[in-house]
Amino acid sequence: MRAARMHGYHRPLVLEDVREPEIGAEEVLLHVRAAGMCRTDVQLIDGYFRSYAEMTFPVTPGHEIAGEVHKIGSSVPRTIGLEEGDQVVLVGGWGDGTCRHCQQGDTQICAHGRWPGFGPYGGYAEFVPVPYRYLIKVDKRFNLKPEELAPLTDAGLTPYRGIKKLRDAGALGPNRVLGVMGVGGLGSYAVQYAKLLGAGATVVAFARSAEKLAVAKEFGADHVISTKGRSLDDVRKELNQATGRGEIDAVIDCAGAEEMIQLGFGLLAIGGHYSSVGLVGDRINLPLFPFVAREYTYHGSFWGNHNDLSEVISLAQQGRIRHSTKVIRFEDINENIDLIRMGDVVGRAVIKY
Amino acid sequence: MRAARMHGYHRPLVLEDVREPEIGAEEVLLHVRAAGMCRTDVQLIDGYFRSYAEMTFPVTPGHEIAGEVHKIGSSVPRTIGLEEGDQVVLVGGWGDGTCRHCQQGDTQICAHGRWPGFGPYGGYAEFVPVPYRYLIKVDKRFNLKPEELAPLTDAGLTPYRGIKKLRDAGALGPNRVLGVMGVGGLGSYAVQYAKLLGAGATVVAFARSAEKLAVAKEFGADHVISTKGRSLDDVRKELNQATGRGEIDAVIDCAGAEEMIQLGFGLLAIGGHYSSVGLVGDRINLPLFPFVAREYTYHGSFWGNHNDLSEVISLAQQGRIRHSTKVIRFEDINENIDLIRMGDVVGRAVIKY
Amino acid sequence: MRAARMHGYHRPLVLEDVREPEIGAEEVLLHVRAAGMCRTDVQLIDGYFRSYAEMTFPVTPGHEIAGEVHKIGSSVPRTIGLEEGDQVVLVGGWGDGTCRHCQQGDTQICAHGRWPGFGPYGGYAEFVPVPYRYLIKVDKRFNLKPEELAPLTDAGLTPYRGIKKLRDAGALGPNRVLGVMGVGGLGSYAVQYAKLLGAGATVVAFARSAEKLAVAKEFGADHVISTKGRSLDDVRKELNQATGRGEIDAVIDCAGAEEMIQLGFGLLAIGGHYSSVGLVGDRINLPLFPFVAREYTYHGSFWGNHNDLSEVISLAQQGRIRHSTKVIRFEDINENIDLIRMGDVVGRAVIKY
Amino acid sequence: MRAARMHGYHRPLVLEDVREPEIGAEEVLLHVRAAGMCRTDVQLIDGYFRSYAEMTFPVTPGHEIAGEVHKIGSSVPRTIGLEEGDQVVLVGGWGDGTCRHCQQGDTQICAHGRWPGFGPYGGYAEFVPVPYRYLIKVDKRFNLKPEELAPLTDAGLTPYRGIKKLRDAGALGPNRVLGVMGVGGLGSYAVQYAKLLGAGATVVAFARSAEKLAVAKEFGADHVISTKGRSLDDVRKELNQATGRGEIDAVIDCAGAEEMIQLGFGLLAIGGHYSSVGLVGDRINLPLFPFVAREYTYHGSFWGNHNDLSEVISLAQQGRIRHSTKVIRFEDINENIDLIRMGDVVGRAVIKY
Repeated sequence: MRAARMHGYHRPLVLEDVREPEIGAEEVLLHVRAAGMCRTDVQLIDGYFRSYAEMTFPVTPGHEIAGEVHKIGSSVPRTIGLEEGDQVVLVGGWGDGTCRHCQQGDTQICAHGRWPGFGPYGGYAEFVPVPYRYLIKVDKRFNLKPEELAPLTDAGLTPYRGIKKLRDAGALGPNRVLGVMGVGGLGSYAVQYAKLLGAGATVVAFARSAEKLAVAKEFGADHVISTKGRSLDDVRKELNQATGRGEIDAVIDCAGAEEMIQLGFGLLAIGGHYSSVGLVGDRINLPLFPFVAREYTYHGSFWGNHNDLSEVISLAQQGRIRHSTKVIRFEDINENIDLIRMGDVVGRAVIKY
Repeated sequence: MRAARMHGYHRPLVLEDVREPEIGAEEVLLHVRAAGMCRTDVQLIDGYFRSYAEMTFPVTPGHEIAGEVHKIGSSVPRTIGLEEGDQVVLVGGWGDGTCRHCQQGDTQICAHGRWPGFGPYGGYAEFVPVPYRYLIKVDKRFNLKPEELAPLTDAGLTPYRGIKKLRDAGALGPNRVLGVMGVGGLGSYAVQYAKLLGAGATVVAFARSAEKLAVAKEFGADHVISTKGRSLDDVRKELNQATGRGEIDAVIDCAGAEEMIQLGFGLLAIGGHYSSVGLVGDRINLPLFPFVAREYTYHGSFWGNHNDLSEVISLAQQGRIRHSTKVIRFEDINENIDLIRMGDVVGRAVIKY
Repeated sequence: MRAARMHGYHRPLVLEDVREPEIGAEEVLLHVRAAGMCRTDVQLIDGYFRSYAEMTFPVTPGHEIAGEVHKIGSSVPRTIGLEEGDQVVLVGGWGDGTCRHCQQGDTQICAHGRWPGFGPYGGYAEFVPVPYRYLIKVDKRFNLKPEELAPLTDAGLTPYRGIKKLRDAGALGPNRVLGVMGVGGLGSYAVQYAKLLGAGATVVAFARSAEKLAVAKEFGADHVISTKGRSLDDVRKELNQATGRGEIDAVIDCAGAEEMIQLGFGLLAIGGHYSSVGLVGDRINLPLFPFVAREYTYHGSFWGNHNDLSEVISLAQQGRIRHSTKVIRFEDINENIDLIRMGDVVGRAVIKY
Repeated sequence: MRAARMHGYHRPLVLEDVREPEIGAEEVLLHVRAAGMCRTDVQLIDGYFRSYAEMTFPVTPGHEIAGEVHKIGSSVPRTIGLEEGDQVVLVGGWGDGTCRHCQQGDTQICAHGRWPGFGPYGGYAEFVPVPYRYLIKVDKRFNLKPEELAPLTDAGLTPYRGIKKLRDAGALGPNRVLGVMGVGGLGSYAVQYAKLLGAGATVVAFARSAEKLAVAKEFGADHVISTKGRSLDDVRKELNQATGRGEIDAVIDCAGAEEMIQLGFGLLAIGGHYSSVGLVGDRINLPLFPFVAREYTYHGSFWGNHNDLSEVISLAQQGRIRHSTKVIRFEDINENIDLIRMGDVVGRAVIKY
C-alpha cells in the first residue's frame, strides 16, 4: 500500500510502498478513503511533541480518518452489525479500557492511550488496523463524501464537545448570548453547533480577520465582531449595539491566545461559563477576584469521544453541517504540509485516495 | 373595573363592576390586557378542586395573564427597571419565599403557595395586584400581542419546562428520537420546543386525531403517528418505517391518559427518559421489571418558574413561537366556558380587554 | 476443574469435573476463590427467564465472583498493571462495546450484552475466562476475604448505584430524609451507603420484620420503622415522631413490592426522588396527579458498572463496609439452592473454593 | 441601641447610642446576639472597596449575624412559621429578586444586591431590619450558641458551597483524593465538610504552618502536608507516600495565593476539578495546554445562598460541626479590629451582646 511516513523530524515525508498491516482478532482493517491534514501533523513533523513522547520511526501521520471496512477480525461481535464495505469513521483517542475515564467513554484522555497518526499506523497510508470499538458506521444512503467525513473526527468534533460542556452545565438557552472566539478550522464548525445546541441562544463570533468573520456569518452567527486592534471597551460597545447587552453568558474558545482568553473573560457575565478547546497560545492569565466573586466556571475540553462523534455524524447525515474542505492528492502531501505550516490553506486539506 | 367572578360552584360567572384592588409596597398593579381561558378554569367552576382547598367567594378565575404596569408600589426596587406602561406577563405560581423550592426559584411547587386566578384576584378582571418579583417585562419593540403572550404563561410554559428536564438529563441530541404524546393546547407548543431544544433530535408526534397530527406536522414535527385504535406493535412498526428504529429515547407527555403512558413507556429505549406534564388521566400503571432493568427515568414536571417563563418570552421575542389563539370579548366569557367544557374550542380562547 | 452445572431446568446441578476454559488474546483466566449465591441463580434454575432468552446447556451459574488472576492473554495491555496472582473481582455485565450505553460505561444495560453465570462459564466452576476490561484489582494489603468480595459485585453494588443516582440528582444533603425500603440482601448494604453518601441526611429504614429492622439499626440507620400491618397514616405518624417531619425526600427501594412502592411515594415530599433497584414485585401503580404536581422523579437503576464497582471496592478497602455472609462448601451447592428457594438463608451464601 | 459605626475610612469605629431601625411590612427586626468579625470588615474600614462602591456614612459593619426575632412586619406570611423570640441566622447576600441568579436562589451574586454590614445596618449594632426571606430559623432544642452560629453565615458557609460544587460535578467519591488548600478561617470548616460530603474520599490538607496542619488533622483530615519552602515535586512525593498516588482529583482552595493555585493545578489528576473560594491573592497564572488536554474544570464559588446556609445549619444542629471562636465584648471592637488587621486572632472573633 502507499504510505507517507516520517523517518525523522524536520524532513519531508517519504512516499513509499509498504506492506498492508495485519489485524488482531478484535480488530478491523480499515481502507482509508480520506485523511484530514491537521496543524498537529505539521507540529509532529516539526518536533513539537518531542518532549512529551519519544517516537520510534517510521511514523505514519494522519488521525482524521474516514474509510471502508476491508477485513473483520474473528472475535469482533456479530451483534454490532459491521460488514465489509461499510462506510466508517474512526474515533481517534484509544484508551487502555480500564481507567475511570475509559470506563465512562473518555478514552481520549486515558493516561495510557495510543492514537493512530502518532505511531506506525495512520491516515497518511491506505490501510489502518483499528480495534472494532473505535469505528462508527456512516449510512451510505446519505451520500456523505469521505473528504467531508474525515475532518469531522477532529476539527468538527472538538468544538462539538466543548459546546456540549456548556449546554450540559446549563449555560445555553433562549435568553443567553454565546460567544465563539476564533473562526479557523474549529471555529467554522463551532458557529454551526452554537446554533444547533444553543436552544435559541444568540451567537456572536469574534475573530481578527474580515474573511473569517464572513465565514462565521455565512455559517449562521447572529453577529460578528472584529477584535483586531480593539480594546475590551471597544468590543463591549459593539457587542452592546448588536445584542442590547455588553456581556456574554458563555464562550467556546477555538483560539486559545492569551489575550483572547482575557477578552473572553472580560466580557463574561456573572455566572458565566467558558470552554477552551483552542491551543494557539499556552497561557491562562486572569484576575482571581472576579473569577470567584462572579462565579465563573472554566472548562477544559479535549477532542471528543465515541458518543460525541456519533452525534456529529448524525448531524452530518441530517445534512445540518456545512463543510469547507480542499481535496488534495497523495502525491502532493509534502507540498501541502508546507502550505499548512505557512497558514496558507483555506478550508481543511484532505488527502483523498 | 369589570370582573367576571364565581359566587359559588356550578353557576355562571357574575359579570359585575367592582373596585380596583389596592397594592402593597412591594406590589405592582397590573392592567390586564389579555387573559387565557384554561380547562383548569372550567374545572375550578365545576368544583373539581373542592377536596383540595376550600374557597372563599367571590373568586376571580384567570391565571394566564398579560398586561401593562399601571401603578408601582413604593418599595419595589428601582434597579429592576420597571416603569408604568411597561408590557409584562405574570408568573403564576407564587410561593412563600422561604422553602427550599422557592429558594431555587420553583415557587410553583411551594407547599404554601397562592396563585392568581384561584382567589379574590385573577385575569377575569381588569386589574390584578402582583408582587413585583412575579412580573416579566416584554420588550414592546417586538410587537407581541397580549393575546399571544397570555397563553405562554401556562399552556406555552408547561411543556417548555417538561422538555428542559429531558434536555438537562442528557436525553436529547442529534441521534435521539423525541416523542411528543398528545397535541392539544400544550402539545402544539411542545412540538416547537422539541425542535428548538432537541439539538438535532428527530421529533415524532403521537395523537388520536388527524387534525391534531396535521397541526403537529405544520408546527415542525419530523413525523406524526396516529394512535387511534392501534396496538403497541402497530405503532412500533410505523415508527420503525418513519425513523429506522422502533424506539424512542425520550417522551414529553402532554396528554396523561393511562394508555398513552403505557404506549410511551412501551416504546421507550434502554436508558430512556419520560416527562409527564399532561393530566387528562390520573393513573400510572406500568410493569416494574423493564423500568428497573432498562434504567428508565420518569420526571413529573409542573407548570414553570420565573426563569422558564423568561426563556419562553425570549423565544417569542425572537419570533420563534407560533401561536394559535381565538380572541373573545369579556361579555362572552360564560358562553366560552361552556364551549371549553364541551371541548369545542380550537386554539386557546383568550379574553381581550 | 470442578463445576456445578445446569443440564436442564428444574433439576439439581450436576457436580462434575470439566476441562479448564481457554482464553482469547484480550482475556484473563480467573481462578474463582468465592462465588455468591443469588436468588437470581435459583430463578435461572427454576426457568423464570425462559421467555426472555433460550439457553444452550450445560450452563454454569454464578455471577458474583472474586478470585485470582491465573493466566493473562497476549494482547492484554501491560499498562493496566495486571499480574498473575492478583486478587480481583469481576464486573458482571458485559456489553458489545459499541452502543451508547457501553460507550459511557453502562455495559450492564447493553442490548447485546452477555453475562458470566448465564451461559457456559460462571462462578459455580473453578475457572472463568474474562475480557480484561471487566476485572478490578483488589489490593491484598487490605486483607479482604474472597467471601466478602464476591457479594459486593451484585448485592453490594446494586444499591450503591441506586443511591448514587439520588445523590447525583441533588436529592441528598444535611436537611433531607432518605428512606431505605426493604432490608434484605441489598438493603443491608443500602443502609450503609445511605450514611456514606448522604452528606448528613437522616436515614430511615422501613421493613416488615423486626430482625431486619434490627440489622438496619446495627448497620447505621438513624431510625427504623416497621411497616407490617400498618397504614400510610400510621407510618407517617411514626416517621413524624422520629424525624419531626412526616415526609421523606428520597427513597432507595430495595424491595419492589407494589404496596411498598405506594407507601414510599405516599411519604414522598414535594420534589422528591425515588430510586428502584428491588424486583420482588412487578407493578408500579400510582396516581398521576401528585407525581406531576409535586414534581417527583422516579429512577430505575440496574446492577452497576465498572466505575460503580471500583468505588464499592474502595469503600471495602477502607474498611467502611460491614459484610454478612455464610460460607458454604462446593459439595453443598444443591442443598443451599433449596434453602435460598425457601428463603431460609440469613446473610449471603457464598461458595468458597 | 448600641452601634459601632464608620464615619469615615481609616478611623476607629464610633461606639454610640442610636435609634432602633424601623421595619417595612415584609421585614423582620432582628435582635443581634452575636456578630462575627471578618477580615472583610477590616478591609472595608481600610478603604479597600472604595473603587468598587461609594459609601454614604455612617456605615455599620458586620455581615455574620445570629440573633432573635424581635418584631415581625405585617405582610410577612404566617405560613413560614416565624415567631418573636425565634433563634435565627441571617443570609447575607440580598438580591433584587428578579434577575436569573436571584430566581435560582443565588441572591449573593445579584448584580443589584445589597448586603447588611456594608451600609446603614449591620451586625456591629444591636438591631438589624431584615427582609423575611433572608432569615433561617435555628431550633433552640439543639442549644447552639449565637457565637457558634454567626461565623457559620460566611466563614462556615463559603467552603461548604465550594465543596458542593465539586460534589455536584461528580468529582467526589470513595476512590478520589480531595485536597484542601489553606487551613485558616474557611479551611478549618472545609476539612470537616470534605469528610461529610466526600462520600469516602481521602482528604489531604495543605498549608504552610504546622499549627494550621495540626488543626486540619484534629478536624478530620486523613493526611496533612506542609507546603512551606517545598517544590511541586517534594509535595508530590509526600502525597504519594501518604495516599499511594501523586495526584489529587479535586481541590477546594481556601487560600487563593497565586503559587497555591499553581501547586494545586500542578497536582491535579486528569479530569480534575478545582474550586476557588479563597481570595488572599489576585492572580490565576496557569499553562493552557494541560488545562485543555487533561480536561480540567475550574469553579469560582462565592459565599453561599439560602439553601446552602440551611444545610450548614442542619449539620450544626446535628452536632457535626466543630467551632473555633473567641468571644469579645462590644466595648472591645476597635481593639479587635487592630488584632485582625495584624493577623493576631486565633479562631473567629465574635462580638456577643
